[in-house]
Amino acid sequence: MAEENTAPAAGAAAPTEPSKNALKKAQKEKEKAEKKAAAKARELAERQKKDAADAEDVSKENYGELPLTGSKDFKPTNTPRVDLATIADHVDKEITFRCWVENARSQSAKLAFLNLRQGLNTVQAVVAASAGLSKQMVKFCGTVSTESTLVVTGLAKKAPEPIKSATIQDFEIHIQKLFVEKAAEVPLPLQVEDADRPLPTEGEEDKVAEGDARPLVSLNTRLNNRTIDLRAKINHSIFVIKYGVEKLFTEFLDKQGFIGVKTPKIIGAASEGGANVFELKYFDRPAYLAQSPQFYKQMLITARFPKVMEVGPVFRAENSNTARHLTEFTGLDLEMEFQEHYHEVMRVLEDLMLYIFQELNARYKKETDLVRSVYKVDDFKLPESGKVPRIPFPEGIKMLREDGQFPEVGEYDDLTTPQEKRLGALVLEKYGSDFYVLDQFPLAVRPAYTMPSPENPKLSNSYDLFMRGQEICSGAQRIHDAELLAKMMREHDPPIDPNAPGTKEYVDSFRYGAPPHGGGGFGLERIVQFWLGLPNIRMTSLFPRDPQRVAP
Amino acid sequence: MAEENTAPAAGAAAPTEPSKNALKKAQKEKEKAEKKAAAKARELAERQKKDAADAEDVSKENYGELPLTGSKDFKPTNTPRVDLATIADHVDKEITFRCWVENARSQSAKLAFLNLRQGLNTVQAVVAASAGLSKQMVKFCGTVSTESTLVVTGLAKKAPEPIKSATIQDFEIHIQKLFVEKAAEVPLPLQVEDADRPLPTEGEEDKVAEGDARPLVSLNTRLNNRTIDLRAKINHSIFVIKYGVEKLFTEFLDKQGFIGVKTPKIIGAASEGGANVFELKYFDRPAYLAQSPQFYKQMLITARFPKVMEVGPVFRAENSNTARHLTEFTGLDLEMEFQEHYHEVMRVLEDLMLYIFQELNARYKKETDLVRSVYKVDDFKLPESGKVPRIPFPEGIKMLREDGQFPEVGEYDDLTTPQEKRLGALVLEKYGSDFYVLDQFPLAVRPAYTMPSPENPKLSNSYDLFMRGQEICSGAQRIHDAELLAKMMREHDPPIDPNAPGTKEYVDSFRYGAPPHGGGGFGLERIVQFWLGLPNIRMTSLFPRDPQRVAP
Repeated sequence: MAEENTAPAAGAAAPTEPSKNALKKAQKEKEKAEKKAAAKARELAERQKKDAADAEDVSKENYGELPLTGSKDFKPTNTPRVDLATIADHVDKEITFRCWVENARSQSAKLAFLNLRQGLNTVQAVVAASAGLSKQMVKFCGTVSTESTLVVTGLAKKAPEPIKSATIQDFEIHIQKLFVEKAAEVPLPLQVEDADRPLPTEGEEDKVAEGDARPLVSLNTRLNNRTIDLRAKINHSIFVIKYGVEKLFTEFLDKQGFIGVKTPKIIGAASEGGANVFELKYFDRPAYLAQSPQFYKQMLITARFPKVMEVGPVFRAENSNTARHLTEFTGLDLEMEFQEHYHEVMRVLEDLMLYIFQELNARYKKETDLVRSVYKVDDFKLPESGKVPRIPFPEGIKMLREDGQFPEVGEYDDLTTPQEKRLGALVLEKYGSDFYVLDQFPLAVRPAYTMPSPENPKLSNSYDLFMRGQEICSGAQRIHDAELLAKMMREHDPPIDPNAPGTKEYVDSFRYGAPPHGGGGFGLERIVQFWLGLPNIRMTSLFPRDPQRVAP
Repeated sequence: MAEENTAPAAGAAAPTEPSKNALKKAQKEKEKAEKKAAAKARELAERQKKDAADAEDVSKENYGELPLTGSKDFKPTNTPRVDLATIADHVDKEITFRCWVENARSQSAKLAFLNLRQGLNTVQAVVAASAGLSKQMVKFCGTVSTESTLVVTGLAKKAPEPIKSATIQDFEIHIQKLFVEKAAEVPLPLQVEDADRPLPTEGEEDKVAEGDARPLVSLNTRLNNRTIDLRAKINHSIFVIKYGVEKLFTEFLDKQGFIGVKTPKIIGAASEGGANVFELKYFDRPAYLAQSPQFYKQMLITARFPKVMEVGPVFRAENSNTARHLTEFTGLDLEMEFQEHYHEVMRVLEDLMLYIFQELNARYKKETDLVRSVYKVDDFKLPESGKVPRIPFPEGIKMLREDGQFPEVGEYDDLTTPQEKRLGALVLEKYGSDFYVLDQFPLAVRPAYTMPSPENPKLSNSYDLFMRGQEICSGAQRIHDAELLAKMMREHDPPIDPNAPGTKEYVDSFRYGAPPHGGGGFGLERIVQFWLGLPNIRMTSLFPRDPQRVAP
């Protein structure tokens, strides 16, 4: 069965070396031949013994290793497969399902237990020798390697008492057939149960956590074995939630009349300042990876698409190894016309996030609770009034100064990460909300295309959205007049040449009638990180990229 | 008003040149000064005249140029804005709306007409001088530049007879106020109405189409002025449909339990053979742009995500300038476990496409009809039975041979584009369907990770999906056994090293229990192109990328 499956990895013989002592070599070869013959004899004896045992194995048709599905030896059975989430509908009935092995253990020659997993569900299965079920089968079941993929047939039974080691506690499986569809090699490079335990705190990678038998596994080891790591329940939950955020983002905006767009990720010129941009070889010339869809989404506004959104990769060649930076992440972008005030856009952003939070609580509570429980993270607090705190930047500065921890913070300075976090704590205290908006940022700390504030020329019609004191979205009203835009670019620090290739097309797009507009760009991974309270953003990327890591 | 708006583009004086003839220069300067004085006098006279006119302009508060919205001179009016699609609900009422100018023309000193556009809708507006509406205002309205953005207030009136030049034929607007929110510069680099006419046939770029006054505009000129080009109704329709296809793709698969994933676009090694891959500088080492999410989506299957989908950019450094290749396009990818037969996957792909076609017809009929009418394209035919023709590759070859146009086509050769197109025509004739599946491709023409066919080792468990005789999706059962996979890679033409960085992680991921699985990858732009019958795939990308083009 499944011959391809057991073929040696590389059968080529090692190249011969020039002999120094022909006699010694001959002697060695003789010993080798003898050993080989002995091994062959042993193998034959074992096979005969096994054949004899098989002869009396009443269960031999009911267990074993399947041939590779879809290959010439494989015969489909056309048996319907059951989702274990529906097990309550099948009590006392025979069910067949695919699953994988969390662990298997022989209790005795006649009894074995397995923990079987399917998605986020685990169930206990028992196999007991009887007149109709051989000890050989019990042995086979009890020694299946952890993480092997199985097809199991058994009776779904009410459990005599709740099974605490499984997520399905009220039912168990009495195994009738067990086939290994794909065996897992041993040893595993990483234990899935280790991947389900928390990351060690930075600098304490080798410390054994209190009450734990083994040291916690470092993030690097996990990421080096990412396909095993990802099997952990916490990781399945994180990525189901991540998809949820993306889905809720487009769902909400679609209802509001936004259309999804795809702007190019390869761009001919390093626009937007040119720093932190990846360069590539584009046939015979250089090109660059887009650091954001900013210019393009605005150009689509000038092309009369009134509301656009984009979900796509964003590339930043920033050589910083923090717990909240990635060199490739998923941007959730939107840009829209507004009628008379950029707060129309801010309102859409606030309502969007409230919708996402509400629906995460409604649709992904199980996954959220599972992840937060591992890191002992507080619930995400939202204002009872339903009104998102909207704090003008100068007021934020005042709060920080009065608090005393940062008495020196400047009126027109950007906030540092510690200042942002402190302000988040103050806002939570005052408004009871982990989510808030800081409005009217200083003009000097924002991009050149930001519309200055009508009230104070040193401020701007721009805003950031925060979760748990950390920025998740930056946005603004954009300048929709080509001449003012070019002027602000020239006066920007550092200055931007409005006539440079790539930039010129953007500036010129505002010459032929353009509506007032604004938007924002979210980092999807950050939303997930701060929603769940995770210690590192890499945990929210399936295959994260940072200055040190481009694999797997 | 709006000083920023009218500031000169660059105010710096030209550098002085060393004089050759001082006298001549003095004379010239005198003439210049005189001219300047005369101009100033004229300007003063005109201003006085204008002031006098203004004095008697009863409408002067009701038209003009608005200050830049959101700037310090701008005062919000808080007037609700109306969507012209709902005009029938506002008959004989005053409405205010944003729109842009398709054209404006003065009929007389007392009467002007404008064609106003909002989205895909256009409406005729009329402004007539009266006791309460000045001739100055009529003149202003009649001379507004094409493509300017306006805010118009007027009465919605039943049209005395159907207005053929507008999409809204039963109503018109009697203008009361008209403000230019953002004027369009003149001349436009491209006329939007030209962008709404078809592309010239290749090689006939300068030929004037029958019955047309002007030559058709080439694709290159359109793409060089893409933000104007995109305003055309045909282009708005194409991109609404494109978003529709993406939305329907995720909507259908979401209901089937797929989760959306984001795999990295920057990869550390040029896997999948290494040809046609873009290289980039990743800090101090080379990296590459992903040519597909193939390896990653399969690695997610090994990580026990049973059904994954991804919408994301795909990069191909193919130096071919055909009407159906892009160097960057949107991949619609999916990968799933199956239980016992890869046709389970094929069925999902077929049902997915049938759903997309059905819903495109239901939700995007207006846009589809608009685009097809420009290129006189036939409806997309689907089998009346609802059963997608599934043609085994050998049968496809037989059809082609019997047809006679390609009698020499080999049993185990890949099909050329002309052969594919011919086969599409034969299938349409025989099965009445523009959509079909070719199953069991020759193993030798498929990627190394394709599962060989159990019936014939020279064939494989792989398939392509076709629309109008052109491939839109390629897919297969993948090998889920590490040893067989490595063997097939080594034996592949050209061979692939299963131990090469990037490839090794992929191969090894199948060592720890992996279910049988399959999937497929669609090109979103191709689906749109063939659904609409467009002559060039560049028309389906907002800012297309090909070997010659990385801008705008």
